Amino acid sequence: MAALIEPRTLKGFRDYPPALMIPRERVLQTAREVYRSFGFAPIDTPAMEYAEVLLGKGGEESDRIVYRFKDHGDRDVALRFDLTVPFARFSAQYINSLGIPFKRYAMGPVWRGENTSAGRYREFWQCDFDTIGTTSNASDAEVVLVIHALLRTLGFRNFEIRFNSRLILTGVLDSLGLCEKATPILRTLDKLAKVGRDGVIEELRRVSDLSEKDADSVLMLTAIDGSSLNRLESVSRRFGNNLKVQEGVAKLTETLNVCALAGVDDRNICVDLSIARGLDYYTGTIYETFLTDLPAIGSVCSGGRYDNLASLYTKQILPGVGASLGVDRLLAAMEELKHPWLTGAATPAQILVFNFDCAKIGQYQAIAQSLRQSGIGVEVYPETKKLGTQFQYAEKRGFKLAVIAGDAEFQTNTIKVKDLALRSEQTVSMKDLIVHSLKLLSAEPPTE
Amino acid sequence: MAALIEPRTLKGFRDYPPALMIPRERVLQTAREVYRSFGFAPIDTPAMEYAEVLLGKGGEESDRIVYRFKDHGDRDVALRFDLTVPFARFSAQYINSLGIPFKRYAMGPVWRGENTSAGRYREFWQCDFDTIGTTSNASDAEVVLVIHALLRTLGFRNFEIRFNSRLILTGVLDSLGLCEKATPILRTLDKLAKVGRDGVIEELRRVSDLSEKDADSVLMLTAIDGSSLNRLESVSRRFGNNLKVQEGVAKLTETLNVCALAGVDDRNICVDLSIARGLDYYTGTIYETFLTDLPAIGSVCSGGRYDNLASLYTKQILPGVGASLGVDRLLAAMEELKHPWLTGAATPAQILVFNFDCAKIGQYQAIAQSLRQSGIGVEVYPETKKLGTQFQYAEKRGFKLAVIAGDAEFQTNTIKVKDLALRSEQTVSMKDLIVHSLKLLSAEPPTE
Repeated sequence: MAALIEPRTLKGFRDYPPALMIPRERVLQTAREVYRSFGFAPIDTPAMEYAEVLLGKGGEESDRIVYRFKDHGDRDVALRFDLTVPFARFSAQYINSLGIPFKRYAMGPVWRGENTSAGRYREFWQCDFDTIGTTSNASDAEVVLVIHALLRTLGFRNFEIRFNSRLILTGVLDSLGLCEKATPILRTLDKLAKVGRDGVIEELRRVSDLSEKDADSVLMLTAIDGSSLNRLESVSRRFGNNLKVQEGVAKLTETLNVCALAGVDDRNICVDLSIARGLDYYTGTIYETFLTDLPAIGSVCSGGRYDNLASLYTKQILPGVGASLGVDRLLAAMEELKHPWLTGAATPAQILVFNFDCAKIGQYQAIAQSLRQSGIGVEVYPETKKLGTQFQYAEKRGFKLAVIAGDAEFQTNTIKVKDLALRSEQTVSMKDLIVHSLKLLSAEPPTE
Repeated sequence: MAALIEPRTLKGFRDYPPALMIPRERVLQTAREVYRSFGFAPIDTPAMEYAEVLLGKGGEESDRIVYRFKDHGDRDVALRFDLTVPFARFSAQYINSLGIPFKRYAMGPVWRGENTSAGRYREFWQCDFDTIGTTSNASDAEVVLVIHALLRTLGFRNFEIRFNSRLILTGVLDSLGLCEKATPILRTLDKLAKVGRDGVIEELRRVSDLSEKDADSVLMLTAIDGSSLNRLESVSRRFGNNLKVQEGVAKLTETLNVCALAGVDDRNICVDLSIARGLDYYTGTIYETFLTDLPAIGSVCSGGRYDNLASLYTKQILPGVGASLGVDRLLAAMEELKHPWLTGAATPAQILVFNFDCAKIGQYQAIAQSLRQSGIGVEVYPETKKLGTQFQYAEKRGFKLAVIAGDAEFQTNTIKVKDLALRSEQTVSMKDLIVHSLKLLSAEPPTE
């Protein structure tokens, strides 16, 4: 007999067993439904593309992390490392037939051969939505509505969508005479939450060669306090003669107004003049989303407005705005916060039909089918194992109810329904099974 | 300015624009819900694994088609070419903690660097479900129930799940003294639908060196006619003294019985003694599923029972049974059959709120939110383009209703709802908007 191959995954890659995959599917399905409810349409692009298309002009950083190889036809190919670059290529290729504005979402794995660390994988899921082909601030405001609806539908109440505008940041730097150093300054500012005020000042002085006074001025912006509207008024008072600042303030004010009218809880949103986002291509509104109960995990949904999506592939200017849900980070947060969706259950079904007699599989499946038609997931145990074994299986998997029909029950046209958490059991007539099961399943779970 | 990069995909890979992706998501979501309703739990495994794990002992065929390369750590890695091999590896690794029986489904893209042809891609989706860790025929019967529920929920009525048992096929070959040639004979028999009776006889004689009489005997099996039960009785009469045939007949009879009790329409199932499946590892029940209105497209859902899933990785014997939905083939069939899910719509939302005034975005979004809360997808047009432009956009995307609120409507607290297919328009009071919209959306589409 040949030697066995060791069953193992690559470093930085992981399997999703049912207890992890069930909540992941629920998160993705929720995102799908929320995105769709705002009119974002799904698209998909290949995992593998020409390396040239994915890497553009290249760059050491991306060359280092991208999985790149020769295919069977000796083509230079690579695996996508995000969903934005393929979306840019897709837009350049089809925008004329798709028409603008174009709203899309995309969900799927991406691959980066980076160093791994806790919670950082080489294969992870992205979950993006974007509106392209319009500069209207209506789309910027909608991003906040989408993130708000998404987090609420995911069951969160304690979260804060923080947004800012690069227009304000660069306008202020203009006013301070620092516009030429805007890119490194904003990249440094983005580290505020991580390295703190002193760390930022030190880096502003060291990297961007700012004077102490200028570094202070840059940081003053981030120290503006009060309500979102107060903050905007304050920055407007100080820097309002700069046109970019004016425009940024007007747009964020409008976004606050749209949010209020559209029923967004104002505890869930906040203009935060200190967020900068590290990426160079953002030019307008920028977004980050923090879980108030677990801020340290970082932003779970981030994005921004950009001036031109697809300049590598087309001369057509495609401005847009969007954001991306960090699925794996969010799942990690849900686990830490003991979110009710992470039940640990390893089955998506709620009821297990016990098996006393394999000759009765047809009858068991008939019972199961009637429950399935009422929207209840039902598994039929395939073997006539001992009652104890079937109970153990049901409990380990996380079924809520066991449905038990032996000879006595079949003769009297009744059935036993056992609530596995309450460990209570009731015999009901067969015709009452569905109503009784629905009642038990909708009842509050017992407190431990 | 640097030269533009040509936006293009690799040969054999394709993009899914919204009009294709919306039905694909619906098919996948339907499969997910049906699999879950029977207690199959989702798992996911990485797209990339050690080449050794995916290729096992290797083989010229798989070496030729598999995308294989060195990663950044100089590991010999490959992309999965199906979901079965990763499931085997996964099972070997975790089965002791997961426990048996274990029912899982998995959905995702797989990659094969094969020659491309019409409808054959190098990246395509698989959508598998399996029960492992049991030899109980209850699980074999359940496969038919799952496929039946899946096709019905996908909106099909004219389909036939054909099943057979390798036990009968090999038992009959035993009886004919041909058991040593079983593998090539079954592989030839599998081509019956493709090459016809004469082609099969020719290949049986040429490849397996059968006499004319033996070739006829093999084919006689496939010519047995009548109802499913009649066919089983007929094969039992002729070959019933062979134990394998006995066992196969008993199991298929039981499956028919389970299907009848569980409410499967008997026009949708059929014992077909001529199906053989090409794959060597099937040992018991085998399944194929044909669309009666488009049989030429081939089986859209196939599978079978195997004796041991994970022998490459573990000494633990893991028998199982399952099947796989051919998502891309099914979508192609749905397109050809003008299935009602393929509407050509490029938006998942049903209503477009027109935009007359960007200062009213908050009000438009408030209207949209109230509809969204009733489960209706609503997009707000982000710009104040001409009415005609917004209508064109709505019609091109496939919105069903347009909701129009100008100054007159806001002043009278009313709103115009236009049915884009019927081209009819009605002004309703704002408080009636939801009820009115739901009524229009649930109405039958007009006949052209």
